[in-house]
Amino acid sequence: MAISEFGLIKRYFSCGMAARGDVLLGVGDDAALLTPAAGESLALSMDTLVEGVHFPLHTSPEHIGYKAIAVNLSDMAAMGAEPAWMLLGLTLPAVDERWLQGFSEGLSQLATEHGVALVGGDTSRGPLTITLQICGFVPPAQALRRDGAKAGDLIYVTGQLGDAGLGLQLVLDRAELTLEPSRRDYFISRLQRPTPRVAVGLALRGLATAAIDISDGLAGDLGHILVSSGVGATVNLDSLPVAAEVREGGDEWWRLPLTAGDDYELCFTLPAGKTAALSQALQAIDCPVTCIGQIEVLPGLRLTSDRGEVIQYHSGGYQHFG
Amino acid sequence: MAISEFGLIKRYFSCGMAARGDVLLGVGDDAALLTPAAGESLALSMDTLVEGVHFPLHTSPEHIGYKAIAVNLSDMAAMGAEPAWMLLGLTLPAVDERWLQGFSEGLSQLATEHGVALVGGDTSRGPLTITLQICGFVPPAQALRRDGAKAGDLIYVTGQLGDAGLGLQLVLDRAELTLEPSRRDYFISRLQRPTPRVAVGLALRGLATAAIDISDGLAGDLGHILVSSGVGATVNLDSLPVAAEVREGGDEWWRLPLTAGDDYELCFTLPAGKTAALSQALQAIDCPVTCIGQIEVLPGLRLTSDRGEVIQYHSGGYQHFG
Repeated sequence: MAISEFGLIKRYFSCGMAARGDVLLGVGDDAALLTPAAGESLALSMDTLVEGVHFPLHTSPEHIGYKAIAVNLSDMAAMGAEPAWMLLGLTLPAVDERWLQGFSEGLSQLATEHGVALVGGDTSRGPLTITLQICGFVPPAQALRRDGAKAGDLIYVTGQLGDAGLGLQLVLDRAELTLEPSRRDYFISRLQRPTPRVAVGLALRGLATAAIDISDGLAGDLGHILVSSGVGATVNLDSLPVAAEVREGGDEWWRLPLTAGDDYELCFTLPAGKTAALSQALQAIDCPVTCIGQIEVLPGLRLTSDRGEVIQYHSGGYQHFG
Repeated sequence: MAISEFGLIKRYFSCGMAARGDVLLGVGDDAALLTPAAGESLALSMDTLVEGVHFPLHTSPEHIGYKAIAVNLSDMAAMGAEPAWMLLGLTLPAVDERWLQGFSEGLSQLATEHGVALVGGDTSRGPLTITLQICGFVPPAQALRRDGAKAGDLIYVTGQLGDAGLGLQLVLDRAELTLEPSRRDYFISRLQRPTPRVAVGLALRGLATAAIDISDGLAGDLGHILVSSGVGATVNLDSLPVAAEVREGGDEWWRLPLTAGDDYELCFTLPAGKTAALSQALQAIDCPVTCIGQIEVLPGLRLTSDRGEVIQYHSGGYQHFG
């Protein structure tokens, strides 16, 4: 790293981040030196946010910083990993101190909350792009992979689906409904400040057979579990946890939670006999979970409703079957 | 990661990369799962390359891929770490299969040579930007940090300095000399395909008191060692290992090796009593090293020559003294 780059990272991102005993050497050398947790697997993930692609132009730097770490923490949650360290690759058109201050505040808020230390990175001149790489730990046999779902398992999601999708419509002035300010703010905050479900991920260790975080809509992300696990599923649309405003979005209201991204809730599968253990494990965690369907032998994703209708879902469209 | 992104990473970057027994789960889940080397420190580094900033427009994808991994391997070399895994954050204006194929070939060439597995990453649409994050291992007490140089230590560099700087002048048509094609190709290849000195870094474990890789010119990078270690140095310009064409570049020929970046050679410090041990350690490695000066108590960087002249070096300029 060049002097100015090194200075940038050090100046704005050293304060307010967690200090950890397993960091031998942090920002400021050719590499960070860290002590991995003995006997655990290292979980590594990386997410890139590009201005105009992953967030609209003129999004506040606080929200960008918050979201950059939130989406990475969400990957840790989806693996059942405990987050520990992160590296930041930041490309900026120019050194704008106010922007950096705001970005750093957004980043450090969640970093502190989750005990994550920023240990290195690189800053460059260029179009606004944020690449965050996060490291965590999980006992190898307890990692929440995508490929462990079995026929008969129940399918759960955390929180509410479609909130961020509606938030994006509101931000882009494409929403077809008018909301009172507090509700409008709520949906936009679910887009800009998603809640990484790290505590839920940790609680699901040894319980869930598969898990993923919902970044691209339930259908696509559950689809990854189905394909990786070699199974299929039926999801009951009427059981999807959605806000009233989403539920009132016309006949095909369910397209939003199924296909809109950015919710960063978890979708996981659980053996049917483990429901009591799940309640027990989540008792102390302030996060609702909802059973939305079941894993089946027959490949593909089928949608049903309380009226018994069945829809065969395809990413390109869908087919009604009486 | 979205389906298409996941597919991209998997399709172009799964083949030709090293397979490693310590990769429990590679590309394709929310995070990679890896088994760290027991008892060793994890060395983590990240470098970003932006088109038009770190490499000229229209640089071939092979060269970009090669350089992206070379600069990261160079960070591992500078820590004395053995590289193991990497994650790739790739932002592309559009999916161009030929570009991806070339980039992947450039990347996998050095990855295979150094036994590095690509275990994850993220691909996005946006301006061409490559962020590579690399992980390696080093016994904690043997890591080559920047802060261990002591007065009396000798200063060494690997290879030749200024080659990449001259290569950049040639690529940008700013060179003031005319070269025969083979020499021209040589200098450009030192810019585009630097040699990460990983084997030298490993050989220096337990020998060198400090090390850094020269990415921004000798003066700046040696300067990092001096500041981190709280010492100064005198470097003899006539001992700098440079190509004849660099040496013939006018009265101030030494400005190129001192200030031009991209050589990715190592600069390290060695107790004066360890020169025989150094020769021994490097015996089997095809890389010249040259002693260029000595660490001193007095802070700052002084330049001398065989004629005995002393120049006080500053990053903003320099002062002649007698």
